[in-house]
Amino acid sequence: MTLKNLYGVSKLSDEQILNLKSAATRARINAITMVQAADSGHPAGAFSGIEIFLSVYALANLTPNNCDNLNRDNIIISHGHTSPGVYAVLAEFGFIDALEAVKNFRRCGSVFQGHVVREIPGIDWDTGNLGQGLSAGVGYALAQRARNFKNNVFVVMGDGAQTKGQLAEARRIAINENLNNIIALIDNNDIQICGHLDEIMKINLKEVWRADGWNVLECDGHNFNELFNAINQAKNFKNSPTVIICKTLMGKDGCAMEGTNEYHGKAPGEKIYFDIIKNLKGDENLLNTALEARKNNLPQKYFGREIKPITPNIETGNVITYEPNIKTDNRSAFGKALAQIGKLNYKNPDKTPILVFDCDLMPSVKTDEFKKYCPENFVQCGIQEHATATISGAASAGGVISLWADFGVFGIDEVYNQHRLNDINNAGNKLVLTHTGLDVGEDGATHQCIDYIGLMRNMFGWKIIVPADPNQTDRATRYMLKTPGCICLAMGRSKREVIKEFADDNFKFEYGKAIKLRSGNSGSIFALGYMTQIALKAADKLSSEKNINLNVYCVSSPLAPDLNAIREACNTKFILTVEDHNINTGMASIMALEMMKNNLHAEKFKNLGPDNFGPSGSSSDVRKLFGLSVDGIINAVNELI
Amino acid sequence: MTLKNLYGVSKLSDEQILNLKSAATRARINAITMVQAADSGHPAGAFSGIEIFLSVYALANLTPNNCDNLNRDNIIISHGHTSPGVYAVLAEFGFIDALEAVKNFRRCGSVFQGHVVREIPGIDWDTGNLGQGLSAGVGYALAQRARNFKNNVFVVMGDGAQTKGQLAEARRIAINENLNNIIALIDNNDIQICGHLDEIMKINLKEVWRADGWNVLECDGHNFNELFNAINQAKNFKNSPTVIICKTLMGKDGCAMEGTNEYHGKAPGEKIYFDIIKNLKGDENLLNTALEARKNNLPQKYFGREIKPITPNIETGNVITYEPNIKTDNRSAFGKALAQIGKLNYKNPDKTPILVFDCDLMPSVKTDEFKKYCPENFVQCGIQEHATATISGAASAGGVISLWADFGVFGIDEVYNQHRLNDINNAGNKLVLTHTGLDVGEDGATHQCIDYIGLMRNMFGWKIIVPADPNQTDRATRYMLKTPGCICLAMGRSKREVIKEFADDNFKFEYGKAIKLRSGNSGSIFALGYMTQIALKAADKLSSEKNINLNVYCVSSPLAPDLNAIREACNTKFILTVEDHNINTGMASIMALEMMKNNLHAEKFKNLGPDNFGPSGSSSDVRKLFGLSVDGIINAVNELI
Repeated sequence: MTLKNLYGVSKLSDEQILNLKSAATRARINAITMVQAADSGHPAGAFSGIEIFLSVYALANLTPNNCDNLNRDNIIISHGHTSPGVYAVLAEFGFIDALEAVKNFRRCGSVFQGHVVREIPGIDWDTGNLGQGLSAGVGYALAQRARNFKNNVFVVMGDGAQTKGQLAEARRIAINENLNNIIALIDNNDIQICGHLDEIMKINLKEVWRADGWNVLECDGHNFNELFNAINQAKNFKNSPTVIICKTLMGKDGCAMEGTNEYHGKAPGEKIYFDIIKNLKGDENLLNTALEARKNNLPQKYFGREIKPITPNIETGNVITYEPNIKTDNRSAFGKALAQIGKLNYKNPDKTPILVFDCDLMPSVKTDEFKKYCPENFVQCGIQEHATATISGAASAGGVISLWADFGVFGIDEVYNQHRLNDINNAGNKLVLTHTGLDVGEDGATHQCIDYIGLMRNMFGWKIIVPADPNQTDRATRYMLKTPGCICLAMGRSKREVIKEFADDNFKFEYGKAIKLRSGNSGSIFALGYMTQIALKAADKLSSEKNINLNVYCVSSPLAPDLNAIREACNTKFILTVEDHNINTGMASIMALEMMKNNLHAEKFKNLGPDNFGPSGSSSDVRKLFGLSVDGIINAVNELI
Repeated sequence: MTLKNLYGVSKLSDEQILNLKSAATRARINAITMVQAADSGHPAGAFSGIEIFLSVYALANLTPNNCDNLNRDNIIISHGHTSPGVYAVLAEFGFIDALEAVKNFRRCGSVFQGHVVREIPGIDWDTGNLGQGLSAGVGYALAQRARNFKNNVFVVMGDGAQTKGQLAEARRIAINENLNNIIALIDNNDIQICGHLDEIMKINLKEVWRADGWNVLECDGHNFNELFNAINQAKNFKNSPTVIICKTLMGKDGCAMEGTNEYHGKAPGEKIYFDIIKNLKGDENLLNTALEARKNNLPQKYFGREIKPITPNIETGNVITYEPNIKTDNRSAFGKALAQIGKLNYKNPDKTPILVFDCDLMPSVKTDEFKKYCPENFVQCGIQEHATATISGAASAGGVISLWADFGVFGIDEVYNQHRLNDINNAGNKLVLTHTGLDVGEDGATHQCIDYIGLMRNMFGWKIIVPADPNQTDRATRYMLKTPGCICLAMGRSKREVIKEFADDNFKFEYGKAIKLRSGNSGSIFALGYMTQIALKAADKLSSEKNINLNVYCVSSPLAPDLNAIREACNTKFILTVEDHNINTGMASIMALEMMKNNLHAEKFKNLGPDNFGPSGSSSDVRKLFGLSVDGIINAVNELI
């Protein structure tokens, strides 16, 4: 019953066409039954895409046997809501069992989710938020290239979302990087939720793709011969990537669902359902079988395959220790460690490739030295952060260590939802944010990234590291590159004094540990990242001038509060938090919730930090405004005592 | 000394050209002195744009006398880092005093910020994060149209950021809405931070603008005759908006700054500075004057004009009261109130126009009835959320009540940074998010907006309202439309029971008040929005079955915790929070920080809510997984007691 993969076939035989046509019929029957049984889903778009999905999965080097390997073709379904059609087609090729999908579609805990997920064999990217699929394809193509593989990357998209700006960005990066192995297909059924494309938002599909330098083909998206010809033509075209505009009919073969926007996102109802089943000569009992099955609990085995971020296999080299009295910026310490590690592993086929992405800020984010040593692993994406965020995520899913360095505001504020999708995908990309906090120079509120902790805290997989000095930055960079999962390293712009205690070759980075640098029982200060140096100066002054002795903790993992340290601090008279981050959403807020949940209280609790957007001025002037100076901290301590 | 505004002039006289040329020289002298005195800023881009800025401000109907009115031309400087050039040109036209800008550029607290802000007369939008300026221009143009004004909107942009996807979105919306009064100008100096455009990211400027239907003109961006001709040609062209690609030289007339990317973002240093001054025959003492002035504190008067969101002047009609036992979704209650108010004020020249924006989700977000009654005030933006977010913000700055309704994930997760810039701009737009929390149907993690509170909490101006039932939704809609400032109204998808206590024509919405619906001293529940109904059921069951009596508070303003209610609850045995929002970043987290700061503690504190991305399943199944059911709440209470 299972359809043969037709990878390498250049012309379809009559029998092959017949087989594909019956598969299309079966797939439509299964897809519509899923939706009707779940009484929820997107049937019409699923129906318009069936022949496209069948052709792509037929011609791709992607099978149930190789789908867990890295060296194979990738397929991204950008319009993940067409899942019923995708599942039904995956079943035809033996990736999954059709009946299980029919029974469990959109059931809580089932892998057959409303939008496609990587836990289903044959799916390479969780989608759902439109416009990101092509970027994911570019990420996979770059990972393929870094591993010297010669596979294709297919991206199937709807037409309504062709207007999303991120698509234009991804198109240009694909051209700039000569990713001629990408084949994009647009299901051009000319219907979106509110009507025909031209009624909603005019876009000249051919012209916008051509303007960005793509090879544009057109075909009948329900005709297997035309689809196969176009895909094979695209495979053989080596001057640029290709997009195939596939003319389709919304709800094709779906009776009353045909040609209307009404069944974009809802079940057809029994009347239309049985019309379709009759028309397609399907089993009239299938729906009942599904409905009966849905009365039971979900069986464990349908939870899908496990998706984990890759475990990097690289040498992380010898630490660089910056001696006290040397001042350097954390950015440079990061850049040096990255370049050293890059060089150490570059083009070593036994090591995981490291890809570094830039958005026209290389000299400021200090990835230029890496580029010098590892030119082929450096990807310039221009001022196109949305695509870059997704590309860097998908590249890591494609099996490389993927690192994007950017200013804080562009690297997280601008692209929060892209990183959220990376997290949902368990992608495991690395994000280096410079110019975070108030330490951005005189650029003003638009450039002050005082919300990176508050933003990342909304996701569940990300770690954030905010190193306090160049030595901790060096160690954290090595930790980040070697550790699986999504990790963000955040730092400011200015030169920093070395913390004496950290200037030691044996000094290690430990995620989740607050480092106690001063002891005292008058009170406790928790300082975030480089605020530690300022807190230490305040504490030392209070100790020498007023004999007030405080605990000072250096916090570098704000998302992972150190309960032992907090417990200890609760035995002193107060807790004062010091951070150049939004006072409502940073370290203090995280600590407060943990304390409340664990019934931990200091006598007094005060949080220092910006309570508004900061003005344009020198970082130290701006910090002073919000009490984040030696004097400001001393004043706060005096208030608390 | 002040240059004359040349609005309406079609051909420049020799004298006018001479005046403009000397203004350009003075502007360059002032601009470079600002940067050198501040030892910070972006001089080379400022120099390349001087003639463009002079031409635009000369030909626009925008003067120091009318710049606080609504009925005039708008000018958006999208690449706000060229501020030294803009300030110097504004001074030429008498908007500001040149010497004050020279003395105070980039000083902490000064209005002469690193990136332009609306507090400076003549500036219509705070920019700094690239790629948003054209969207802001579209927003202003739509506001102009809604008020029946016939003015032009000028948008000046750099060329490096032409790759940003949001630009393509804004281009299409401008075409779709026939905004032929927009004139965009690109300063095409062919240099971005890391090199020439083609070295960083290839883009065919002419082709991408043409592909989206714009009229494309080209001119020498340093030649006043050519600039004036092009702008006048654009003004007279009525078939589409026009973009003028102005060929310029990076750092023009800036000696060693010419033609290089080195002085994109730093001061030239004394050597080059004095070369430039000599070359331009400037006053060699100006720098010293500025440096001397910078030793003093900033005088109060340079803090700029006050920018406030508009105060809506509309009738909000009679409340609609939904009787108990009626079930309707909050979305529909919102849509009904909006349509009613829209109809009441539509085309009334004495009332503030209400503009409603959609991204192809009208039937789901319930703005279709508004569209029926107020077709000319409804703007379809297609699947282009980034542009829409900025457009809706700028439209409100342009003097209309601007409301965008979208699914939560698309309306805030995808466009956080756009709303952040709206907030920095004090724009005052209204954002209606439907499908928030876990109440999204079976669409899965990508569509579950369980972070809207955690995201908005990172900004400082936004209010969030999460109504519990249709009656509160009705009242909150009226409150939102009438209240100045950025306000977000967030709601789920499903039908909700009416809360008996709210089914009253006299029931009012009060921002910041937690409404106590049950009393008891065993413990206290704070429930967010529609979780109130579920909490009430649990409380009533505990009361009748176990004689456990609890306070139940309905929280609808999670960003504004009600300290009186919290204080009262701290006298009971526990506080239990119930919210279908990320457990780490929602109402509980806000309450915990407030409690910690105010030294308020309940004996026990527990927060219920999702601690991970939710699976795809029915909303009630998914809620149950996270303990957000009647039984889940009862279990939590039993644990706490």
